[in-house]
Amino acid sequence: MDEDQLRQIIRKIIEEEMDPNRIRIGVSNHHIHLTDEDFHTLFPDQKELTVFKPLYQHEEFASNQFADIVGPNGTIKHVRILGPNRAHSQVEIARSEAFTLGIDVPIRLSGNLDNTPTVKIVTKDGEVEIQGVIIAKRHIHMSLDDAARFGVKLGDSVSVEIESEERKTIFEDVICRPRKDFLLEMHIDTDEANAANVNANTIGKIIKK
Amino acid sequence: MDEDQLRQIIRKIIEEEMDPNRIRIGVSNHHIHLTDEDFHTLFPDQKELTVFKPLYQHEEFASNQFADIVGPNGTIKHVRILGPNRAHSQVEIARSEAFTLGIDVPIRLSGNLDNTPTVKIVTKDGEVEIQGVIIAKRHIHMSLDDAARFGVKLGDSVSVEIESEERKTIFEDVICRPRKDFLLEMHIDTDEANAANVNANTIGKIIKK
Repeated sequence: MDEDQLRQIIRKIIEEEMDPNRIRIGVSNHHIHLTDEDFHTLFPDQKELTVFKPLYQHEEFASNQFADIVGPNGTIKHVRILGPNRAHSQVEIARSEAFTLGIDVPIRLSGNLDNTPTVKIVTKDGEVEIQGVIIAKRHIHMSLDDAARFGVKLGDSVSVEIESEERKTIFEDVICRPRKDFLLEMHIDTDEANAANVNANTIGKIIKK
Repeated sequence: MDEDQLRQIIRKIIEEEMDPNRIRIGVSNHHIHLTDEDFHTLFPDQKELTVFKPLYQHEEFASNQFADIVGPNGTIKHVRILGPNRAHSQVEIARSEAFTLGIDVPIRLSGNLDNTPTVKIVTKDGEVEIQGVIIAKRHIHMSLDDAARFGVKLGDSVSVEIESEERKTIFEDVICRPRKDFLLEMHIDTDEANAANVNANTIGKIIKK
C-alpha cells in the first residue's frame, strides 16, 4: 500500500467516524428474558443468572445460562438467557425460526406482548410455559441528546442505510427508542444482518426521518 | 365490510397491478444444481431428475430428489435439487447456513464460481465434492422488453422497495438479468425474505436505476 492509498483509507475512516448520522449496529441472536420466578423454576439449584459478557446497553448482559424453546412442530436448542431478569418473561426469535417452531409470531417491540403466542421453555431441571414470543421490530436505542440531535421522539420511524458490500440495504420502519440511560445503537436480528451482509465493521446511517 | 371499503381495496389492487415498476418476488430456499455426471454418482439407480413442481422461469423445476450438504463444521440435511441439470454443479445457501457449514461463502450471481469453496454432497447411494458454493446475489430476471422498459442492461444495479408490513425494506445492489426467455421476477433468498417480512402477496417496485 502506498501513502496515497493509506491517506485515502484514513480519510474515509475519519469521515465515517465524524458523520453525525452514523449508527453502531448490534445484531441480536435469538434469546430469552425471564422473570425471577421462571428463572427459579428452570434453574432450581442456582441463585441467579451469572454474567458471561456485558452487552453494549449498560446493565444488560449475556448470561451463562441456556434453555431450549419448544414449539408444536420443533425445538430451538441451547438458547442464551439475557439478564438481568425482567417483570415479564419474553422470547425473541428470528422469523426463520418461527417456521421451525411451527407458530405464527408477530413482529413487535420488546415488551409489547398482547396476543403473542406461547412456547415451552425447557432445561434439564425444569420447564415453564411463556406467553410472549416475538420477532423483534428493528429499533434504535438512543440517549435523549441523540433524539434531540436527530429531531425524533419515542416511537418515530426512521430509515437506516446499511453500507455493506454486495448487499447494501435500506431498512425502513426502524423505531426510535430514546431513554436517558441508552447508548446509540441500532438493533436488528440475524435474518436482517444476513440480508444486509452486516459484519463487525458495518455501520448504519439515518437517511430519513 | 361496506361498499366504500371494498371499493378502496379493489382500487388499491388495480393500482398495484397496473404499476409498470411492479415486480413479482420469488424466494429461493437453499438448493443444489448438478451436472449429469454428479447426478449419476449421487443417484446410481435413477435415470434422471423427476419433476416435483415447475418453477416460474420456464424449464426450471424443483425435483423430487434431495441430498445433504456436508461442511467442515456441520451439515444441512435434505436439500432439494433443482433441474434441469447444468454444465456445472452449484450449491446455493443462505448466509446463515454458511455459519452452520463452517465455510466462508461469497455472495455471487449464479454461475460465477471462481474461487468459491467446496463442500461434500451426500445421498444414501453416493457422494461428490462440489466446488461452487455461493450465497445468491439478489437479481431480477426480465425479458428484453422489460429491460428496454426499465432502461437497464445486463449487469446493471437497481434498488427495489419491498412494501411489506412492519419491515418495509429497500434492497439496493439488485442485479438486472435480461434474457429473451426470462419472465419478470426478482429472486431473493430466505434471509432476505425474512428480513423484509415477505409473504406470498408481497411485491417489489424498482425505485432507482
